[in-house]
Amino acid sequence: LHTVALENFQAEKGLYKHFMAKEIHEQPGVLADALARYLTPDRAAVRLPVPVDFTSASRIVLVACGTAHYACHVAKYWFERFARLPVEIEVASEFRYREPPLDAGTLGIFVSQSGETADTLAALRYVKATGGRTVAVVNVETSTIARESEVALPILAGPEIGVASTKAFTCQLAVLAALAITAGRQRGTLDAAEETRLSTALATAPGLLSRALALEPEIAEIARDLSRASDVLFLGRGSMYPLALEGALKLKEISYIHAEGYAAGELKHGPIALVDDAVPVIVLAPTDPLFDKTVSNMQEVMARDGKVLLLSDAAGISWAGEGTWRTLALPTLDPFVAPIVYAAPAQLIAYHTAILKGTDVDQPRNLAKSVTVE
Amino acid sequence: LHTVALENFQAEKGLYKHFMAKEIHEQPGVLADALARYLTPDRAAVRLPVPVDFTSASRIVLVACGTAHYACHVAKYWFERFARLPVEIEVASEFRYREPPLDAGTLGIFVSQSGETADTLAALRYVKATGGRTVAVVNVETSTIARESEVALPILAGPEIGVASTKAFTCQLAVLAALAITAGRQRGTLDAAEETRLSTALATAPGLLSRALALEPEIAEIARDLSRASDVLFLGRGSMYPLALEGALKLKEISYIHAEGYAAGELKHGPIALVDDAVPVIVLAPTDPLFDKTVSNMQEVMARDGKVLLLSDAAGISWAGEGTWRTLALPTLDPFVAPIVYAAPAQLIAYHTAILKGTDVDQPRNLAKSVTVE
Repeated sequence: LHTVALENFQAEKGLYKHFMAKEIHEQPGVLADALARYLTPDRAAVRLPVPVDFTSASRIVLVACGTAHYACHVAKYWFERFARLPVEIEVASEFRYREPPLDAGTLGIFVSQSGETADTLAALRYVKATGGRTVAVVNVETSTIARESEVALPILAGPEIGVASTKAFTCQLAVLAALAITAGRQRGTLDAAEETRLSTALATAPGLLSRALALEPEIAEIARDLSRASDVLFLGRGSMYPLALEGALKLKEISYIHAEGYAAGELKHGPIALVDDAVPVIVLAPTDPLFDKTVSNMQEVMARDGKVLLLSDAAGISWAGEGTWRTLALPTLDPFVAPIVYAAPAQLIAYHTAILKGTDVDQPRNLAKSVTVE
Repeated sequence: LHTVALENFQAEKGLYKHFMAKEIHEQPGVLADALARYLTPDRAAVRLPVPVDFTSASRIVLVACGTAHYACHVAKYWFERFARLPVEIEVASEFRYREPPLDAGTLGIFVSQSGETADTLAALRYVKATGGRTVAVVNVETSTIARESEVALPILAGPEIGVASTKAFTCQLAVLAALAITAGRQRGTLDAAEETRLSTALATAPGLLSRALALEPEIAEIARDLSRASDVLFLGRGSMYPLALEGALKLKEISYIHAEGYAAGELKHGPIALVDDAVPVIVLAPTDPLFDKTVSNMQEVMARDGKVLLLSDAAGISWAGEGTWRTLALPTLDPFVAPIVYAAPAQLIAYHTAILKGTDVDQPRNLAKSVTVE
């Protein structure tokens, strides 16, 4: 386990007040660097830096903790769609103690920024012991999880110092997207034209993310109201559902506001009881095939005096923005890359809200960067 | 769809102020009635009222919404352990639109109190269309979900009027437990001695639940403090993790307090940042093989001035109760039935807290009993 004294990095914050701000803004750059290692030079196909064989897999299990777990949740949707494989996602602390039934057809993918997360490492060892295959997706290439996996894929995010993970999340998503496309190609469920479409879309993610970051002044303004809320809900459907979970986790971690993410369709099964004019509801809804369904849930919130912040693209906001409290217009994009791009405003919302609350953004109370004990 | 005017039932509340209170207290009776239909007369084995074949299943998918989804989450752990089958649990609104890969070996189990939940019905139709087999677990036997499934199993809870589901949840758990034991027997992963042990334990659930309900005066007292909280966390591991989610949902639904459930092992990956002396943390921890791990998470909460309410048995409280804010001593039990028995205090905590908050317990704001639209 390599530990690095925080003081050594103080100089590297540069113009930023916090490592978290620096790391949020580094994302277009590190994401582009990572994609350069995972896409062909013409951006028309995926090429993994080390080979992974998906042809013998009958099932994928994605195991992680915290933010990395939400990256896995997005990846589940990608693997299912591109490779038509059953995919299970698991919180490592639950997976390891449950001794779930696995077989030799199980391919385990273990995602950890530090590569030292204790529960994720134990889960990896369990999969190995039951004869399953193991792939690590890590930021620290010399880490235990990387060394103990059959294959280790680097996310190439560079050192992440802020306790709340930001650039590691988007780089994890990029690598998992490349893996899902590879699995689809190998299994014959994704043709070359479709791989080119997806790879090209993935290559646009750094630029789109950069444009999303340009919303920062608007977000800082919105944060003034959010910082007065004691509860916030995040809603999304499909691959934006895990983003809602991640957006809520980020806000919770650094602002100590009780934020919670929900699948938009679950709202009526309980959490809508929380909604009144004091609870901002942040809706993550690019114009994708699920857009109308999400908007319908958003309108239920508004009918109950809920204060909605709608994150969508220009078309979505023009279609459904009326009556919302605020809107944030993100770039128009291929819905495939929306989880990567919408991560940026979610991070900035948390960051600016926390700044206004006066919390210690880089080292929030009670939290450690890597959870290397159980 | 059968709708019943609420007024027709007013007379039936009997001595209770609310249907919810009546339904909570009906649980030992309806659970015993349900088990009489699912266990042999000597309580030594499970006997389903209609046969379900698990021998041809290669995978189980459990689909539901809200509280029924949490019953499925508990059942996942049971099916994995008893039948060594991969089990996926899905929120219906996510499952139906994702078009997940399924095959003829998929056995879909659809759980809905009303049997009319729109998203769950759509998920059932999707599984049928992809060649999978379908089993319904419903309270209303004449419902659409019951009629459209190959096999329908009744939970026999009787009419549930309170919007927040209580007795339907515990009866769903009983039926799902019987299904998981049946699956284990049919697949040769559970021998007769083990089936007898589990069936005997299941038969003790109504009596244990009755003893748990006797804690009501203590719970009403604890609720006086909880009703002043604006945030509450529920923690559990293993099959108590879904109970933590359900306990939080119940409190949220009827008291409008922002409660959230977490896998205890995930605490350090973010939510512990919320913990201070104003946030009660309710820990659900019977003495089972995960007890020490949960206690260790609980101690982290206490080290950060968190106010812990520990729900355990006498041995657990004697071992780990020191320094907690409050304890609730539940009966000593086989950990297998803990999710059924611990549901009772979770429901009573929500009920008494809501009463003190003065909310409309039987018809909380914004919620409908059955969500028959998307």
